[in-house]
Amino acid sequence: MRIGELVTPALLVDADAFEHNLATMALALPGARLRPHVKAHKCTALAQRQAGKGHRSFTCATIREVEGMAAAGLGDDLLLANEVLDATRLGRLDARVTLAVDSLQTIEAAVKGGVKEVVIDVNVGLPRCGCPPDNAGQLAEMARSRGLTVRGVMGYEGHAVGLDDRALRQELVAASMELLVKAHTAVGGDIISAGATGSYDINTWANEIQAGSYALMDTAYAKLGLPFKQALSVLATVISASTDGYAVANCGLKALAMDHGKPDIADGSTVLIVSDEHITFVPETSAAIGDQVRVLPAHVDPTVAYHQQMHVVRGDEVLESWEVDLRGW
Amino acid sequence: MRIGELVTPALLVDADAFEHNLATMALALPGARLRPHVKAHKCTALAQRQAGKGHRSFTCATIREVEGMAAAGLGDDLLLANEVLDATRLGRLDARVTLAVDSLQTIEAAVKGGVKEVVIDVNVGLPRCGCPPDNAGQLAEMARSRGLTVRGVMGYEGHAVGLDDRALRQELVAASMELLVKAHTAVGGDIISAGATGSYDINTWANEIQAGSYALMDTAYAKLGLPFKQALSVLATVISASTDGYAVANCGLKALAMDHGKPDIADGSTVLIVSDEHITFVPETSAAIGDQVRVLPAHVDPTVAYHQQMHVVRGDEVLESWEVDLRGW
Repeated sequence: MRIGELVTPALLVDADAFEHNLATMALALPGARLRPHVKAHKCTALAQRQAGKGHRSFTCATIREVEGMAAAGLGDDLLLANEVLDATRLGRLDARVTLAVDSLQTIEAAVKGGVKEVVIDVNVGLPRCGCPPDNAGQLAEMARSRGLTVRGVMGYEGHAVGLDDRALRQELVAASMELLVKAHTAVGGDIISAGATGSYDINTWANEIQAGSYALMDTAYAKLGLPFKQALSVLATVISASTDGYAVANCGLKALAMDHGKPDIADGSTVLIVSDEHITFVPETSAAIGDQVRVLPAHVDPTVAYHQQMHVVRGDEVLESWEVDLRGW
Repeated sequence: MRIGELVTPALLVDADAFEHNLATMALALPGARLRPHVKAHKCTALAQRQAGKGHRSFTCATIREVEGMAAAGLGDDLLLANEVLDATRLGRLDARVTLAVDSLQTIEAAVKGGVKEVVIDVNVGLPRCGCPPDNAGQLAEMARSRGLTVRGVMGYEGHAVGLDDRALRQELVAASMELLVKAHTAVGGDIISAGATGSYDINTWANEIQAGSYALMDTAYAKLGLPFKQALSVLATVISASTDGYAVANCGLKALAMDHGKPDIADGSTVLIVSDEHITFVPETSAAIGDQVRVLPAHVDPTVAYHQQMHVVRGDEVLESWEVDLRGW
């Protein structure tokens, strides 16, 4: 099948860039040093390729992701790096599930839901989930008193990982991880889990890195000069061309996320506006009705979540199509 | 069922606000004066309610939407207000399908795909699809020479409909519609189709208005002081609360769109950051772990497209659940 036969807009994965990204990461963080985050791609077929590179432990952001990974036979060691107040669906799974907790309530939810293992989620600077570092030891004690196994700590330095300035990124990651390591001393356990694609080679404190974007990449992460290639694009068809110098392709707000700003177009065309089902752009060279363009989203995660499938391509050939089967909650 | 039993995040439709919106619009634009745009809700169950108010002609933005509406028995008069280069799926449908065309290529696509009726899509100021107004007559002639019935014109004044300043909005709508009416004189046919929720009571030139957002509404349109109520929200659960004064609920970038900016929270809480599965906010009064909050998206269309279902509620009671069955392309 050729990409010209796909219904557009369609999510494409460049096979060679994807393979490069997986190989590069597996070399830098082999085996369990990487705990790939499936939230970035929501696709068990893609996760199977990550497992094929030696990573058998995964990070999830939703209960649905954990369920789907378990059903796909990828349940060796699943960390739900998020808080939940009803863990009953997790407790039922035939998989090793570890749950993040940051409060008495989330510990009780784990117990009640039949989850056996937890990590203490520590706030290391991002105003989101996680307990104050000084409370981590006490929470671990509470969790153990309720019969849970505490495997260690996690802390996401999300305020640092997207910064363009590498020196500043390093500085903030170091400060965050100082807090996490201290909390780990109080908590115990084997796991110090943190990080992201933006800190994969900086964060030497954590013993496992929760990177997700590296596999597909986006234009926001591309600005950091990481050794990962843009593998993801949205294929669109030019459906209208103006005599005023702009063209319109059939890919819009329901095919890509805008929280990190406008997308780019692979050939260097200038994007003017994005509306529900359209992208208006000034072509770099020319754009005739019927031409296809590859649109590069600024943020991979919420872009993939709009699509039912991603198509693995090499040039114009569609090699295979993967279901985005971990959507929803 | 109570809303506390829903898996969060969950899309809610307030039954009373929704009913108010449908009744208000049906009074202002009865029957065929409104051609409701289904792109805003992507839900045939909701469209059935619009049909129940007397609107039997609908606007669609994608082939998938046209197919789904036809399959749901709502195919009396479906306008695909968008350009396509492969119309074969449309030509196969047991429904009355009218297709927008703005070029020789899109006319040929209609002919080849077996579509019988078209409207000439005219650019009235928004840099997107649509032919120059002066070319509309010639395109209509071409379409007729190829055996197509030309039902009239459409032109979307999208650059005007979202403006807060009503006087400016009126001015730009008038200028746009002057172009469309002139094009209609050259084209002929019964239809002058235009508009949106933001111009439903201003655009007196078009004989049918393609409003969609009015049924559910969003915070962007709320700023215009229209007589429609916010019926849509995303229900989220507070999963973490910081001693630093903020709380975190489980609703993020995969549950609402950010192209029109951050969402609001119904109780007036201040939203700080939105990430993939989280919203961090400073509570207006207090927010305890386990509390539920209703998040109000800035843009309805790409928010709904993230969800598989919407739940119609009155207070805390879930009255019914509707499939968002028109997603994809």
